[in-house]
Amino acid sequence: MLVYIAGSGAMGCTFGYYISKYTDNEVIFLDNWDKNIENLNNNGMKLTGKIEGSMDVRAMKPSEATEKADLIIFLTKSVGLEDMAKGVSHLVDKNTQILCLLNGIGHEDILVKYVDLSQINMGVTVWSAGRDNSGDINVTNIGTIDMQNIGGNEEEGRKIANILNEANLNVTYNEDVMKAIWRKLMVNGTLNSFSTLLECKVGEFFSLDSHAEIVDELISEFIEVAKADGVELDKKEMLDYIYKTSVHTKDHYPSMYQDLIINNRNTEIDFINGAVVEKGKRYNIKTPYNELITKLIHAKEELKGSKLF
Amino acid sequence: MLVYIAGSGAMGCTFGYYISKYTDNEVIFLDNWDKNIENLNNNGMKLTGKIEGSMDVRAMKPSEATEKADLIIFLTKSVGLEDMAKGVSHLVDKNTQILCLLNGIGHEDILVKYVDLSQINMGVTVWSAGRDNSGDINVTNIGTIDMQNIGGNEEEGRKIANILNEANLNVTYNEDVMKAIWRKLMVNGTLNSFSTLLECKVGEFFSLDSHAEIVDELISEFIEVAKADGVELDKKEMLDYIYKTSVHTKDHYPSMYQDLIINNRNTEIDFINGAVVEKGKRYNIKTPYNELITKLIHAKEELKGSKLF
Repeated sequence: MLVYIAGSGAMGCTFGYYISKYTDNEVIFLDNWDKNIENLNNNGMKLTGKIEGSMDVRAMKPSEATEKADLIIFLTKSVGLEDMAKGVSHLVDKNTQILCLLNGIGHEDILVKYVDLSQINMGVTVWSAGRDNSGDINVTNIGTIDMQNIGGNEEEGRKIANILNEANLNVTYNEDVMKAIWRKLMVNGTLNSFSTLLECKVGEFFSLDSHAEIVDELISEFIEVAKADGVELDKKEMLDYIYKTSVHTKDHYPSMYQDLIINNRNTEIDFINGAVVEKGKRYNIKTPYNELITKLIHAKEELKGSKLF
Repeated sequence: MLVYIAGSGAMGCTFGYYISKYTDNEVIFLDNWDKNIENLNNNGMKLTGKIEGSMDVRAMKPSEATEKADLIIFLTKSVGLEDMAKGVSHLVDKNTQILCLLNGIGHEDILVKYVDLSQINMGVTVWSAGRDNSGDINVTNIGTIDMQNIGGNEEEGRKIANILNEANLNVTYNEDVMKAIWRKLMVNGTLNSFSTLLECKVGEFFSLDSHAEIVDELISEFIEVAKADGVELDKKEMLDYIYKTSVHTKDHYPSMYQDLIINNRNTEIDFINGAVVEKGKRYNIKTPYNELITKLIHAKEELKGSKLF
């Protein structure tokens, strides 16, 4: 089987490494950055942290790839998804399956412009990895993946789950994956957004007098919009999950903080709180807390003059 | 006539100076800070900036004052008002008038616990002054005062206006002073709060892509609550005023920024956006933008460990 990893950041590299190492499938990394491609082809990749290893890899631009894909795993930044989906569309035929593991919601609305719904698998992962200064991939959490074919093509979806499990990626075929995606969305929409706005650690935000009221209002908006979108979520369960996550990550500056405050890059706020605002508009649901935090994060990007990538 | 200036900060000193200099009335400064009192009694005050002058003054703690007041002008910080009102209550008899010139709304709810409504004059000023490093008062704007007796005692209110005009303080007896107070409240609730949250100049906030939507939502909440509170405001007129003020003050870091970011002191957010939230609750009006900005400013105070005074 030919697997393309679309987006060769730290997470893409990690998953590509596992698939190459533990299965017989061929892996090709796709990227739009010449520097990344050159580096991967010349130096291969090196993993450190929770697992250690290195391997030679093949990387290229989407336009340079010619062989039809059996599976394309999307692990771009949200803002880069549309470009990548367009760029790989010549690699897709009726047998190709897509697996999208980006944070946030609404990505399926982009993918469905390029492939049939029966070819789309949506997923959510708690694996985590970052690139350290030397360019090595630092795997910071051996996680799990929840995924589902959202076009009702369960057979193909389960095949992918099996392959990824063979690769030791700890996959569950989740018949209610949208719930898992929303759950992670809520974590990101509280921990990430507010720690970034206030420039503090997750634990610092969750120790503030006002944090409980803010989280409660936000989550109420998420749940109302999710419900209108066909996803039923239990508020107490969601709050428990968010608080549990905030304890695990209390000493962390979340990824959005790292994007904006450390690396001066635009955030993915439009695919997190901003996506809830947009969905809310479709259903005529007001989401003022999500709306204001989205505007404030954009304000901060603008004041800092942050870059798209 | 005996005039007490309750609160001997930069604004209190400026108004006290004018009344002493240009009228025959006696002025005594009241303060709860020993250091301020000592300094005023030993060194007098010196004004620089838009006007220059110096004079010897009398200052004391409220508890040390004994003579009944003809007029008490309140110019404390909002958080200090209740203490001061309680502290001067032994100086009030039925002939005493009160003039409250603090920023924000809701101060009359505090004052009415200590004096009759017919003795309360509310006002709003665009005079501005600050204390520079040497302790001198830097008068940064020769402004105006709008005031009104809110207990319907117009005769006494106009007497005060006349005295203050004799002192060259440019007073208008405004039969709709609450409108002027709300108008200034809206300026403070947009310019001050958001420049402080985002740590930028007024002009920087007003150049952001998202500023117009944020200001629009905030102002809509202000106007709805003001209306329920008996104050009719025209949205276009209010927006014009805010934008005009933002142009005049574009290079300024507003006073709330100076309080929190420069001096690490708590802000007056509870008397600005927070006061709109509280009034909104009474009338069952939702004010999510004012609510979230209030919580975020408090979050910032907490993260910075700012002090009450």
